[in-house]
Amino acid sequence: MEFSSKLLERAVNEMAQLPGIGKRTALRLVLHLLKQPKEQTELFASALLKMREEIKFCRECHNISDVDVCEICANPSRDTSVVCVVEDIRDVMALENTGIFKGLYHVLGGKISPIDGVGPSQLNINSLVDKVKSGRVKEVIFALSSTMEGDTTNFYIYKQIKEYGVTTSAIARGIAIGDELEYADEVTLGRSLLHRIPFENSIKNM
Amino acid sequence: MEFSSKLLERAVNEMAQLPGIGKRTALRLVLHLLKQPKEQTELFASALLKMREEIKFCRECHNISDVDVCEICANPSRDTSVVCVVEDIRDVMALENTGIFKGLYHVLGGKISPIDGVGPSQLNINSLVDKVKSGRVKEVIFALSSTMEGDTTNFYIYKQIKEYGVTTSAIARGIAIGDELEYADEVTLGRSLLHRIPFENSIKNM
Ligand SMILES: [Zn+2]
Ligand SMILES: [Zn+2]
Repeated sequence: MEFSSKLLERAVNEMAQLPGIGKRTALRLVLHLLKQPKEQTELFASALLKMREEIKFCRECHNISDVDVCEICANPSRDTSVVCVVEDIRDVMALENTGIFKGLYHVLGGKISPIDGVGPSQLNINSLVDKVKSGRVKEVIFALSSTMEGDTTNFYIYKQIKEYGVTTSAIARGIAIGDELEYADEVTLGRSLLHRIPFENSIKNM
Repeated sequence: MEFSSKLLERAVNEMAQLPGIGKRTALRLVLHLLKQPKEQTELFASALLKMREEIKFCRECHNISDVDVCEICANPSRDTSVVCVVEDIRDVMALENTGIFKGLYHVLGGKISPIDGVGPSQLNINSLVDKVKSGRVKEVIFALSSTMEGDTTNFYIYKQIKEYGVTTSAIARGIAIGDELEYADEVTLGRSLLHRIPFENSIKNM
């Protein structure tokens, strides 16, 4: 792509760094911003900068939060003895949407994926093991998406915590194998929580 | 969508203002930025702000440019007697890519579209008529996409300039009716320029 303007080219190149946004789409988005009032670009840029600068992660569950301890962890009516292990905030949002789960979450921040260079040390696994060690947690529910990386991560964590006598379960595979959690409908997702099975049973086919 | 963070919510809402970007996609893009080094967000935001703040439009052809008169208009080897009328910079880029056209462009900035509230006064039409009036232009090539809005715009301009005895042509419809110019392959697009026909002939089916 040959640009008549370096300013335009730079904006398009930066936009095209976003995943799934090609050069053509980036150009379309940037030209849209040029047609809108200048204020829209300013609000957009400042929202991104402020978020990147000030966002916090809950020190209990590692979910994205504006405060040190997120609303869910700070809510006294939640059952602190049940911890649901998820990949990221989208899964928390999807599970909260079902209205069924009253325990707490533990956000790993990803899945173990050697291909993408993600090992256990880059995920929030140690703090989960510490929670289990402390004896406060009675049940750990694995709710990672049922991909190979999800299964690997579940199993890695399972091996680390089983010695502490905690109950482990995995959400029922009402969700199609390989599908992302966040795209499941609320009924399916809610049911898969209610019908969770002992983790040992969920790995029989592994 | 219920967010655990206002900072995240604001960033997602701003991102979702871009055309074709829904809330889910916006969340995915914003979470991607959160996983990247802070510098990426800073570069992205500053590229958008700088572009929106400093970008210029060529005072001759209205194309996006970093200088008052764009490279094409400032190029002494271009044929100033032929002006190709296009909608926006993407069309200029597509036509320049063919390497066939040696005249100048005139960027309208859109098409007449009553549904979208775009009338002739919001487009760079008067300056085109002035160019033709000045007697410098011998031929005006219409290269808007062949949609109803494109045809309407072509015809509106045609009526304003025909009295000045300028030759008018329309690029050959080698491009499928209704297709956007920018997605045409270079060969088709180049041929449609070479095979342009008198504008009067192109409106026979209107
Ligand atoms: Zn929390
Ligand atoms: Zn120019």
